[in-house]
Amino acid sequence: MQSPGFLLIISGPSGVGKTTITHEVERALGAVFSVSLTTRPITPKDVEGRDYYFVDKPTFEARRDRGELLEWAEVFGNCYGTPRGPVQDTIAAGRIMILEIDVVGAIQIKARMPEAYALFVLPPSENELLRRLRSRKREDETVIQRRFAKAKSEIIQAWECSIYDDFIVNRDLDKAVAEAVDLVRQRRDR
Amino acid sequence: MQSPGFLLIISGPSGVGKTTITHEVERALGAVFSVSLTTRPITPKDVEGRDYYFVDKPTFEARRDRGELLEWAEVFGNCYGTPRGPVQDTIAAGRIMILEIDVVGAIQIKARMPEAYALFVLPPSENELLRRLRSRKREDETVIQRRFAKAKSEIIQAWECSIYDDFIVNRDLDKAVAEAVDLVRQRRDR
Repeated sequence: MQSPGFLLIISGPSGVGKTTITHEVERALGAVFSVSLTTRPITPKDVEGRDYYFVDKPTFEARRDRGELLEWAEVFGNCYGTPRGPVQDTIAAGRIMILEIDVVGAIQIKARMPEAYALFVLPPSENELLRRLRSRKREDETVIQRRFAKAKSEIIQAWECSIYDDFIVNRDLDKAVAEAVDLVRQRRDR
Repeated sequence: MQSPGFLLIISGPSGVGKTTITHEVERALGAVFSVSLTTRPITPKDVEGRDYYFVDKPTFEARRDRGELLEWAEVFGNCYGTPRGPVQDTIAAGRIMILEIDVVGAIQIKARMPEAYALFVLPPSENELLRRLRSRKREDETVIQRRFAKAKSEIIQAWECSIYDDFIVNRDLDKAVAEAVDLVRQRRDR
């Protein structure tokens, strides 16, 4: 018997290693990554349809107003949204659709799709989170401290909003990946 | 060479399994449990010097005013405090002193002893926490919901206060015990 598909939401502060975990879950369980729609300008590094679907603002707004987006947000003047169609098609085909999204987006999604499974990745400690934020990029300390403050408030929001089905700590990446894969598999096979 | 002693603070919401974890850490590392001073009446189940040191209020206040308590709090009219002497003696003897305490108490301790190592035990999810709170005791739903709300605010406080050195999730008790013992051992041997 084929397992039914479902939507997997993965959230966690920047620097926590959630993108690596997400990709390992995708690989281990043959899941499909949701590609967002965005109005931000395309750069030479971007691949259309892999990183984002790039559209202009009127197109974005038209699709949003037709109810084609599961959630959307505006960040620094650019709009980002999750197209509903691919999510529904992937789930209907019995596969897992992965959405890497922040807490605010996750709340919107869970309100529309309460059966979605939401996983939050925590850092092992604040010091370790700060260390990872510092090691990742050559950014000045002000930017790092801003990211760190945002990460902390994201964690607090995650516990406050009550939508997450499971929390894992990423202290050791291999263990965190194994734990995430195990939890998603349990959700699939339940 | 003997490892130097230190104070180990363990916190976590009620129902998270922290007492079991604490006892396993105590056993694995030959640590010593801090016994609190209290003004609450002794009951037939209590053993003086094992569960608490039972004193009257003037004695408690005199000891507090002489600076003999590392932290103290009043809960439902009863005072509870951590005697400083046994903590200092145990650490001086090169052993680990364990203090199971709430976030407010942990903040007081860390302010006086910044070298203390503070560990916070998280539930794997809110649903699992609620399930554990319900299974533990025959309490009515109002009491359980109050404990649940307190547990959530304790978790949020723990991330807000920035004093915890490590967070672990107790999803599987054996794994959580192993992780806690490992972290405390690393702190000891560093």
